[in-house]
Amino acid sequence: MDEQKKTAGLRGFSAGETAICTVGNQAAGLRYYGYDIGCLAQYASFEEVSYLLLYGELPTTAQLNGYISRLKQGRGLPETLRLALEQIPATSHPMDVMRTACSLLGTLEPELDFAQQQQIAVRLLAIFPSIMCYWYCFSQTGKRIDCASQDDTIACHILHMLAGKPPNAMQQKAMDVSLILYAEHEFNASTFTARICASTLSDFYSSVCGAIGSLRGLLHGGANEASLQLFACCDTPEQAVARVMEKLQQQEKIMGFGHAVYKNADPRSAQIKHWAKLLSEQAANGHYFVMAEAIEQWMQQHKNLFANLDFYSALNYHFLGIPACLFTPLFVCSRITGWSAHIMEQRQHNVLIRPAADYIGIAQREFIPITQR
Amino acid sequence: MDEQKKTAGLRGFSAGETAICTVGNQAAGLRYYGYDIGCLAQYASFEEVSYLLLYGELPTTAQLNGYISRLKQGRGLPETLRLALEQIPATSHPMDVMRTACSLLGTLEPELDFAQQQQIAVRLLAIFPSIMCYWYCFSQTGKRIDCASQDDTIACHILHMLAGKPPNAMQQKAMDVSLILYAEHEFNASTFTARICASTLSDFYSSVCGAIGSLRGLLHGGANEASLQLFACCDTPEQAVARVMEKLQQQEKIMGFGHAVYKNADPRSAQIKHWAKLLSEQAANGHYFVMAEAIEQWMQQHKNLFANLDFYSALNYHFLGIPACLFTPLFVCSRITGWSAHIMEQRQHNVLIRPAADYIGIAQREFIPITQR
Repeated sequence: MDEQKKTAGLRGFSAGETAICTVGNQAAGLRYYGYDIGCLAQYASFEEVSYLLLYGELPTTAQLNGYISRLKQGRGLPETLRLALEQIPATSHPMDVMRTACSLLGTLEPELDFAQQQQIAVRLLAIFPSIMCYWYCFSQTGKRIDCASQDDTIACHILHMLAGKPPNAMQQKAMDVSLILYAEHEFNASTFTARICASTLSDFYSSVCGAIGSLRGLLHGGANEASLQLFACCDTPEQAVARVMEKLQQQEKIMGFGHAVYKNADPRSAQIKHWAKLLSEQAANGHYFVMAEAIEQWMQQHKNLFANLDFYSALNYHFLGIPACLFTPLFVCSRITGWSAHIMEQRQHNVLIRPAADYIGIAQREFIPITQR
Repeated sequence: MDEQKKTAGLRGFSAGETAICTVGNQAAGLRYYGYDIGCLAQYASFEEVSYLLLYGELPTTAQLNGYISRLKQGRGLPETLRLALEQIPATSHPMDVMRTACSLLGTLEPELDFAQQQQIAVRLLAIFPSIMCYWYCFSQTGKRIDCASQDDTIACHILHMLAGKPPNAMQQKAMDVSLILYAEHEFNASTFTARICASTLSDFYSSVCGAIGSLRGLLHGGANEASLQLFACCDTPEQAVARVMEKLQQQEKIMGFGHAVYKNADPRSAQIKHWAKLLSEQAANGHYFVMAEAIEQWMQQHKNLFANLDFYSALNYHFLGIPACLFTPLFVCSRITGWSAHIMEQRQHNVLIRPAADYIGIAQREFIPITQR
């Protein structure tokens, strides 16, 4: 029983080897292929970081230019996919849309050979923003947006499609940093899902569909959307803190605080908070930022819990004018890079992931024919 | 390093508790909720067994009748799904079709509350055969089959849709037994995928999509389709054995032999072999059966490997006139019961499944700006 408790959810138990990422357990531990997350967020673009995750090295200027041009070419939606997106109900969960579109793309542009894996990773990285924005805009307004923009960065592409006009430099950088911070995080639940699927030698799309499905959950990617709900109906820091206390009294979890791996701080929080603060100065609902700081302080003092990446990311996205229902799909647009890296790594040294279980049910029962039951 | 090897693929390591199934490691070990698999295959119907997996007890006659009538009602395809199936290319992998259809259904009939979970499990069990057969028949012949048959059993429903006429009693029973044997198998890779996804508190369809994706792999569900390829281009037992020897010389794996959990025998093999033998007596290519026995004997004697469920199942399906590309989707039609049971069990005592990893990459690298790379 103690043994079982110790391994509940496999927490802290190594399920395999990786050369992609360290998370550490102190605030300074997060590195992608050895590069500190703080440096990447400050000095690199998401295109450089995604290249690093897909190819293992930061690109030279020539490599980056070629890569960006491939990403631009990969933005277009195949006609069958576009029509399918128009058929999906406007009330659907946007993560269900991402999962379905990824799955359908797997029938239209199948992975016939593992040699295609990097090409498919780039295609998915390029097309996910188009899928997300096309469906959202069509389902909300009936408008068929053009996804094949010539914007150089994914951050700009996303903000341009959603707002119908190009973002300013600060908005673009805030989105870019968010994509960098969400890109990779070792054996989290969605990545581990992708690796198990890859370990059966299934195709790339199957692995990514599985990962999207896991990311959708409230205990994983769904947390960023949920954490924005704290601010609704509050106008002052005092009201926001009162709201948190009320939720805690009702035994509700405060989303955006604490972490399954980190114990003292999330090394990504300071980065995203910096941009949320800058954006707040020119955004509608900019007063959310002081409310957020009040909540953060209160949670630290009274619950000894720190704000994780999701907390200030939600604000960041809100200040960028992004509807809350797209927060988790945005996570997909970023994390596809980490998932892809792990699928490729799993395939390279593959062993089928097939654990055992402790049986706690009825030992043996005699079969009784239905007429005698 | 030794520690790592020991836990490669988490083999033999308990990833949690379950009351649904024991696999044991001897041939007699497989039980669903305490009932021996041999008894279930001989004396119960797949409808009884699926009820057992979804509700934890074998049904009374009244319960079974109500359940069968719900299953019959669940066979119809929503119009949007039907049209989407017609758009999926005829060359697609049928498992990609199952995954996409399941995902799309999740947007059309979403799980808005976990209280709907059993209802959704029954719906998926009822509709998967319709999805599989509708797409297959339409993509191959352009014919739009009627999926809302009044056949009492799932086995009959499947065979009826594929052949365009009702099966005889022996064919129906052979299919029924196959569905029972494939229904559940503890923490196999696809079920574990479903549980991880469920552990994030994601929805039912996401978990099932992830499971379908994992089952698709050649090291998991894909093996039954692959094992039929042994028989192609062979006419005699001697030729078949020669084919196997040739493959082994070329370092190819012989699909349908050995098992990740079982060491001496697969407790399901004798059951399915029995029906394959009976079917062979009235089937086209009935001589495959003696070829299969010759291969089985040779593999046992020379490689000390036993035939697993997939080996004679492939023959069984072939004798039933089922195209090889549908063998793994048929596995989905059966295993949806086990997946559903595990998703519900995971939710009941949920802990997020989030393992750690051993880092084997570069410890730390200094960031170099792109102009200096």
